[in-house]
Amino acid sequence: MKDQDLRICFIGDSYVNGTSDPEYLGWVGRVSVAARRKGYSLTSYNLGVRRETSTDIAKRWYQEVQPRLPSSCKPFVVFSFGANDTTLENGHLRVVESQSVENVREVLHAAKQFYSVAMIGPPANADPEQNLRTHKLSHLFAKVAKNEGVPFLSVIDQLAEDEIWMSEVRAGDGAHPSAAGYARLAALVEAWSSWWFH
Amino acid sequence: MKDQDLRICFIGDSYVNGTSDPEYLGWVGRVSVAARRKGYSLTSYNLGVRRETSTDIAKRWYQEVQPRLPSSCKPFVVFSFGANDTTLENGHLRVVESQSVENVREVLHAAKQFYSVAMIGPPANADPEQNLRTHKLSHLFAKVAKNEGVPFLSVIDQLAEDEIWMSEVRAGDGAHPSAAGYARLAALVEAWSSWWFH
Repeated sequence: MKDQDLRICFIGDSYVNGTSDPEYLGWVGRVSVAARRKGYSLTSYNLGVRRETSTDIAKRWYQEVQPRLPSSCKPFVVFSFGANDTTLENGHLRVVESQSVENVREVLHAAKQFYSVAMIGPPANADPEQNLRTHKLSHLFAKVAKNEGVPFLSVIDQLAEDEIWMSEVRAGDGAHPSAAGYARLAALVEAWSSWWFH
Repeated sequence: MKDQDLRICFIGDSYVNGTSDPEYLGWVGRVSVAARRKGYSLTSYNLGVRRETSTDIAKRWYQEVQPRLPSSCKPFVVFSFGANDTTLENGHLRVVESQSVENVREVLHAAKQFYSVAMIGPPANADPEQNLRTHKLSHLFAKVAKNEGVPFLSVIDQLAEDEIWMSEVRAGDGAHPSAAGYARLAALVEAWSSWWFH
């Protein structure tokens, strides 16, 4: 596979964007660099957008992914979102759980018709109560992904216990780490048995 | 401005994407890192897509930029494209010059209504004949940008004479440099008097 024209879209929220990383790589840039070092000819497209929920992403993902993955390439898509769904605004979840689950089912079911697809679960932030909700949502996402036959990597437990991730999140805006935290998340993806670029 | 929520979209072609950079930064990542080092709180969105012409970009730019630049932020947009317009396919230009010029006028005129806008001209590649066409197109783009009151940075002459840029382009696929070449282009942008993040 290493000599093929590999192209990947990472689609999700601010964690995908790499918000607050002063090196402007985030975990997406770091896993791309690692794949290249192993010899893969990988073109990487970062389609993370701050504040976006699963509903936002379900609406936009295909119109942004489709022009980036022409039929001439070997195409990959990674989804990663959920933390904005579990945010409370005026006492209400931004997206109710049943809708989040339906959004994931919809995007995974559609994407797997055209692309190699994987999903990375939402990470932990500095709010223990939100982390409980996000943990539950991540578990539900994993079940949907399993039903759809899409590999899913849960990261919330590892990151909640990761001193580097959590200390950078707390030192920052309460949600996003800095460079070292993103490197920890990248390492989880790179170590994942279902990851494509070993 | 340094304490404001600054967000920028770079929209263009493979040079914007940073194709072939093993560090997955390109010039876009490098100018973002430099802005952060100077103290700007900058969220950076890379919307470069390989093979895209001015016609492709005129079609998609707004639907991709709009969700990334909410009214709560101070928004910036950088356009950079043109080299794919001057490529010959079956003896024909992919986009004829008059259409390229009209595309630029359209996107700059629309974008400046909403955002702080700048344009970076197309760079040189390893094909001297194409570089002549791209040079002329860059000159026409500069005139359009001036008429629209949008700052325009021409880079083709400097890059065509830049040993690092040209040697990496020739050692690669004939179009894209590696990390050091992209760093050279980033330096031109950072040194530009109209650049926002000094």
